[in-house]
Amino acid sequence: MSDTFAIGGKNLTSRLFLGTGKFASNKLIPEVVRSSGSQVITVALRRVNPDQPEENIVSYIPQDCILMPNTSGARNAGEAIRIAQLARAAGCGDWIKIEVVSDHRYLLPDNMETIKATEVLAAEGFVVLPYMCPDLMAAKKLVEAGAAAVMPLGAPIGTNRGLKMKELIGILIEEISVPIIVDAGIGRPSEAAEAMEMGAAAVLVNTAVATADDPIAMAKAFGLAVEAGRLAYLAGPGTVRDYASASSPLTGFLHE
Amino acid sequence: MSDTFAIGGKNLTSRLFLGTGKFASNKLIPEVVRSSGSQVITVALRRVNPDQPEENIVSYIPQDCILMPNTSGARNAGEAIRIAQLARAAGCGDWIKIEVVSDHRYLLPDNMETIKATEVLAAEGFVVLPYMCPDLMAAKKLVEAGAAAVMPLGAPIGTNRGLKMKELIGILIEEISVPIIVDAGIGRPSEAAEAMEMGAAAVLVNTAVATADDPIAMAKAFGLAVEAGRLAYLAGPGTVRDYASASSPLTGFLHE
Amino acid sequence: MSDTFAIGGKNLTSRLFLGTGKFASNKLIPEVVRSSGSQVITVALRRVNPDQPEENIVSYIPQDCILMPNTSGARNAGEAIRIAQLARAAGCGDWIKIEVVSDHRYLLPDNMETIKATEVLAAEGFVVLPYMCPDLMAAKKLVEAGAAAVMPLGAPIGTNRGLKMKELIGILIEEISVPIIVDAGIGRPSEAAEAMEMGAAAVLVNTAVATADDPIAMAKAFGLAVEAGRLAYLAGPGTVRDYASASSPLTGFLHE
Amino acid sequence: MSDTFAIGGKNLTSRLFLGTGKFASNKLIPEVVRSSGSQVITVALRRVNPDQPEENIVSYIPQDCILMPNTSGARNAGEAIRIAQLARAAGCGDWIKIEVVSDHRYLLPDNMETIKATEVLAAEGFVVLPYMCPDLMAAKKLVEAGAAAVMPLGAPIGTNRGLKMKELIGILIEEISVPIIVDAGIGRPSEAAEAMEMGAAAVLVNTAVATADDPIAMAKAFGLAVEAGRLAYLAGPGTVRDYASASSPLTGFLHE
Repeated sequence: MSDTFAIGGKNLTSRLFLGTGKFASNKLIPEVVRSSGSQVITVALRRVNPDQPEENIVSYIPQDCILMPNTSGARNAGEAIRIAQLARAAGCGDWIKIEVVSDHRYLLPDNMETIKATEVLAAEGFVVLPYMCPDLMAAKKLVEAGAAAVMPLGAPIGTNRGLKMKELIGILIEEISVPIIVDAGIGRPSEAAEAMEMGAAAVLVNTAVATADDPIAMAKAFGLAVEAGRLAYLAGPGTVRDYASASSPLTGFLHE
Repeated sequence: MSDTFAIGGKNLTSRLFLGTGKFASNKLIPEVVRSSGSQVITVALRRVNPDQPEENIVSYIPQDCILMPNTSGARNAGEAIRIAQLARAAGCGDWIKIEVVSDHRYLLPDNMETIKATEVLAAEGFVVLPYMCPDLMAAKKLVEAGAAAVMPLGAPIGTNRGLKMKELIGILIEEISVPIIVDAGIGRPSEAAEAMEMGAAAVLVNTAVATADDPIAMAKAFGLAVEAGRLAYLAGPGTVRDYASASSPLTGFLHE
Repeated sequence: MSDTFAIGGKNLTSRLFLGTGKFASNKLIPEVVRSSGSQVITVALRRVNPDQPEENIVSYIPQDCILMPNTSGARNAGEAIRIAQLARAAGCGDWIKIEVVSDHRYLLPDNMETIKATEVLAAEGFVVLPYMCPDLMAAKKLVEAGAAAVMPLGAPIGTNRGLKMKELIGILIEEISVPIIVDAGIGRPSEAAEAMEMGAAAVLVNTAVATADDPIAMAKAFGLAVEAGRLAYLAGPGTVRDYASASSPLTGFLHE
Repeated sequence: MSDTFAIGGKNLTSRLFLGTGKFASNKLIPEVVRSSGSQVITVALRRVNPDQPEENIVSYIPQDCILMPNTSGARNAGEAIRIAQLARAAGCGDWIKIEVVSDHRYLLPDNMETIKATEVLAAEGFVVLPYMCPDLMAAKKLVEAGAAAVMPLGAPIGTNRGLKMKELIGILIEEISVPIIVDAGIGRPSEAAEAMEMGAAAVLVNTAVATADDPIAMAKAFGLAVEAGRLAYLAGPGTVRDYASASSPLTGFLHE
């Protein structure tokens, strides 16, 4: 069975996307990526520096991965658009993860500005993956604006709080036609597996891996969990019941 | 890194135990077992029938697996002891999973009778793995009685309801010295992963695999999830925080 | 202790708002309102019919209550504005609950259209209470647009599913300066109490009361629960702890 | 409607039981009791001191309340029995709340020892209310032993963690014939209301009230919440649904 999904014309086999912030050292990144099995890696454009290979985050990303620069630092649509254009000019390719944030405590995305930026960038030929608060109507507008996928947060970024938006994410999965990629807040592999069991197309993880005592092992754990959750989704889970039902025959064994 | 754990003198590498009830056909069992990677397989003694290989559940279990007969059908300690002795006499080995159930709606175990049976069977040289309601003081008594592991339920058997006893299971993991194996109620791989992340030694699954549309794929999903959860536990997960924390640099990019 | 809160220049003592849809008979409404203690009652403008008192929902609302007509049926800002203006012309006063819904399965509000309608109606002197998906940035824009309160949903309307948006509502309560009134989805008094304990200013309930076997008793239950939750919020709850702490002296009683 | 329940031949109208440990001063107790509306008050026998009225906890309990001394400090059945007998001899009456605890971190009860003590004390004519870990089979044995009610913990005592044992408590409510009184761990009025909505007969609270900034207000909040939850249980709550259902008419208003 081949279970791939396509974004921006690329067929992906791994459903775990990886962020590169917060690692103790960039030198960890290649092995973390390999250990995770990820094919799509996000980087903040600010950390892309073609002139200084040692500090250039891109130098640490395996060449067969798809680079997904993000617009972190953008506070409105205009800034996000500008960063996306700079990223393409810097050779980072056509994929862009839009992050527009002006809230400083929870770092929650601004859906309205994100929709505006999506519309402009999709028209310019970018493969646009917007980070968003899982509001169904905003997700519909993102799709209309040309988003290649929709990336709702599971919980505020960097919190490791898990799938707190389960109710709304489940609705997006049911109602939205493009892939739903859960991004931000996922803190444990079990939570990534649960998102996949719900029918998410993929999961993006960063803090949970970067802040683990052993990031390489944790990356592997997330890779396995995402695969487990996807397999379970495809395998058609059994019904959840209120009352017990014996796995083994219960009656009469010694009494026949 | 070799991460094994020992029960009854056997070193186990897989932390997924598998039950064999409820499968549409016994013929599925060998491939389900292989797909799951399980090394310990539980069977109801009633289904062990050395005289009729076709109907003998044991015929379907790969020979390198450890057989763990269970006492399902026992309503008190005496019946459980009797079934255990019959199992050993039938060549099923020394491992015995004690199930004593007289509640017909929720099939909840009788901890007091289970403690009595554990005491007798441990003294007779059995490797005793009691299924129990996750009451800390009962778990302590099981250990004193000679249990090789303690098997608290996650939810009533066959319900696929998940880790409903999380609070009590977490306490057992913290306070009990023998391995804690979560048994019954686990319905999704994400739930098995969560039990492992909490520090469970292993998870036993049956209904969730047997009632999936594709039991072989579901068995593989559980195997991966258990491995993911265990890896995450060992990798030392990061802190869960109330407030957001940027993965990517947020300030100043366009404004320096 | 007098614990009131003000909206649109009115001081309110009850923090339970009540909806009037779905009741088996309009004749129940006066007693339900009295039993609940509510001072603010919402009605769909469509059900306001000054020419036919028997069918006019307003006839059934005690005169000392504040009428809060809602724009249900509006699919965009323009329609919501139109309905609000009709409501004022029909003598329903200045309060308007904005509902803009074009999603037919989950009936989730359209935050962007709601912001537009809020801006126009606030400028026209309405006391605007927008129903919204609890997205922090949208809530901030609603406040900027002149909303007198913000009404995030607890769960999709009519589901009785409870406080599923707890994570996002908690953030609104912390970050938004106008009163937060949880609207939609609340199915049990305990959930209303929890919203109040979190610091919500009020709760709006309709389906949970109207679909109870005994709506009058259920209205009373919600009134008590909202009061309980508010009192608890003001009373300063104790810390939640991981480990036990004896209420009664534990040691030495028989052993001194 | 008169909604009373009987324990030990007494008809009770209030379903909130109150503990008296941990208050900053005993002098708070009379007003806390009045504010809560409680009719049953538990005290540790150790704090009963007929010779010194100032230090005698009983002096602070309104005379129309039922005194329920508890056996806190008992580590086994024998000690619990001894304390119960001393309590009766000291004039505390026939009610006895059995607490047998030998676990020092979670203060979890020992169900087996509790069953033994219940059997002896019920035979001696006590009205026995055992504190227990919510294991169904243990609850059945407590009833057989003569318990007048069963008091499962919601969470470890003193933690304010809430209704963590919801799954098991729900089963007790369904399967056990004597009143189920949720005791320990309840930290918020909403949690008390939820226990009552599930069908609990009553709730016992201590730490949540005693550790609030304003214990008198918190006692009142719990009294209201328990009444709200009970009323809701009796009022027959509506169905919880997956999909939305409009409270107000949605279609056609401006489009007829």
